[in-house]
Amino acid sequence: MIIDCHGHYTTAPKQLEEYRNRQLAELKHDPAHAATAWPLDISDDQIRESLENAQLRIQRERGTDLTIFSPRAVGMGHHIGNESTSRYWSESCNELIHRVCELYPRNFAGVCQLPQTPGVRPGNCIAELERCVNEFGFIGCNLNPDPSGGYWTGPPLTDKWWYPLYEKMVELGVPAMIHVSGSCNPNFHATGAHYINGDTTAFMQLITGDLFKDFPTLKFIIPHGGGAVPYHWGRYRGLAQDMGRPPLKELLLNNVFFDSCVYHQPGIELLLKVIPADNILFASEVVGAVRGIDPDTGHYYDDTRRYIDSVDWLSAADREKIFHGNARRVYGRLGARCGDPARA
Amino acid sequence: MIIDCHGHYTTAPKQLEEYRNRQLAELKHDPAHAATAWPLDISDDQIRESLENAQLRIQRERGTDLTIFSPRAVGMGHHIGNESTSRYWSESCNELIHRVCELYPRNFAGVCQLPQTPGVRPGNCIAELERCVNEFGFIGCNLNPDPSGGYWTGPPLTDKWWYPLYEKMVELGVPAMIHVSGSCNPNFHATGAHYINGDTTAFMQLITGDLFKDFPTLKFIIPHGGGAVPYHWGRYRGLAQDMGRPPLKELLLNNVFFDSCVYHQPGIELLLKVIPADNILFASEVVGAVRGIDPDTGHYYDDTRRYIDSVDWLSAADREKIFHGNARRVYGRLGARCGDPARA
Repeated sequence: MIIDCHGHYTTAPKQLEEYRNRQLAELKHDPAHAATAWPLDISDDQIRESLENAQLRIQRERGTDLTIFSPRAVGMGHHIGNESTSRYWSESCNELIHRVCELYPRNFAGVCQLPQTPGVRPGNCIAELERCVNEFGFIGCNLNPDPSGGYWTGPPLTDKWWYPLYEKMVELGVPAMIHVSGSCNPNFHATGAHYINGDTTAFMQLITGDLFKDFPTLKFIIPHGGGAVPYHWGRYRGLAQDMGRPPLKELLLNNVFFDSCVYHQPGIELLLKVIPADNILFASEVVGAVRGIDPDTGHYYDDTRRYIDSVDWLSAADREKIFHGNARRVYGRLGARCGDPARA
Repeated sequence: MIIDCHGHYTTAPKQLEEYRNRQLAELKHDPAHAATAWPLDISDDQIRESLENAQLRIQRERGTDLTIFSPRAVGMGHHIGNESTSRYWSESCNELIHRVCELYPRNFAGVCQLPQTPGVRPGNCIAELERCVNEFGFIGCNLNPDPSGGYWTGPPLTDKWWYPLYEKMVELGVPAMIHVSGSCNPNFHATGAHYINGDTTAFMQLITGDLFKDFPTLKFIIPHGGGAVPYHWGRYRGLAQDMGRPPLKELLLNNVFFDSCVYHQPGIELLLKVIPADNILFASEVVGAVRGIDPDTGHYYDDTRRYIDSVDWLSAADREKIFHGNARRVYGRLGARCGDPARA
């Protein structure tokens, strides 16, 4: 049993993009435009077609069972438009994920995009989070630590600004993957810089703040192998120590988890060496940021299962934790929902 | 012979801080205040005292010979004040580095801070770069890719905005370490997030641009082990490939180098495994970001020589390159200046 905790619907039918383009056109005409909901005219067959030769084929080829699935991250675009833009766009994206999970309950478990907007209190995301969890059976959310899209104009994750949302997450028993979206800052390539920086930044915010004293059961997944963090684990341990903070294990590792989206063997080995097995969740982010075949290995860069399988010193118990045990623990609602592999 | 390519004068006599505080006070009174130069009343003995029990003691203890030495990075503060603030502050900091190098020519080789200011064309840094190289014998500069201090409001490093400075660097034959300064953005802890993000961001900018077609001999050192880059080397190789860029080795590795400021054994091993030995320069950044002793090893986190010495599969030839050969090659003026260890 292998659960991939990090998949986005990057192959959604073109009507979704047309929906977004219609929003963009209206915003161009009037930036203060109050968006409204439109129906998404997508058939079940179109959804099937978008997945069969992509995520589902890859699941079969790589022997993974269930993907924790959310809207395309780079497409969340929280910096675009206003609160109403983000609301209707997020609702549409989430409804489409719901349909995917209904069509393939054994293959996908839903995670929602939140209707964040720069400068708007994150409490505005609670209604959509509740709808996705309670009505759709979603098991988590993606939380953008920088809704400004690369200018980082909002408060850090440890600020009370975010607390109402955290309270709801704890009440619902759902974790968040800390995941930025696209970058509108020309300094940051989205998947090559902004993503990785977002991961690194979030972790360092959590070292300096006391968030988990206030929310002892709140859980965050830091994607892309934790950004730069495992590579600089000595730096982070040392910085925490110099600041008089508790050891990282005690300070964070009941609450913070890393996925395994690291696209080469030495990186995966570092991750497995440095981060306790209890804190690593298998993931590949397919179909995602890197789509090619590594000429040095003849395999897809993002075939992360292959790297983990190649690590002969990883114990069977740790492998089980990484491949599914931790995902079930961190995404506590996984057992309760339609996509539950235990039910399969 | 061991050259540490990354040291900052973090222990400067308190008069330097007083100088800065005087600038800050004047700016508080009048943000448009045109700064002027004041003399720094620091004696040679005070300089000796600031180094003897810090950088020099550590050089002796760790068996390193020469430190490539620049003003305190977090103190550059290019986002503070205006162009005149940055000019006089940089000049003062650089003059102090010059005095250090004059007092200890065998221990230190100078690298300058540039008087960058957000929104001001980097051509304004040429006069100070020329002064430092031609009059003081400095061998390089630190280039801040984000003079806004964490808001990234300027253009990327590949933009023609920077070209006049690059032209002068090439003419003078000096490389730049790409090094951000302090962060005035509450999202970014300086040494825990902004530094590492700056490194990662710069590398990705260089992948997407064609800077080294225009400047085939321009050389950059990316500090802190290259930020997240070596850990995500597969991601960067794959992204370049997906974008139709040449392989990274061909695209960048004649021009881009990584230092070894990675503060734990697995991180150093990853760096040495993934990045060609020709592209790694020994560095520790002492006295720097992490000052404590790792309770797991009993040694200083930043004692990076120890990690490299422990890698038994590193060939003697590669070790020589990393410890001094590459530094002499990248900092081409090292042989010509007073601190030349070959002269010692």
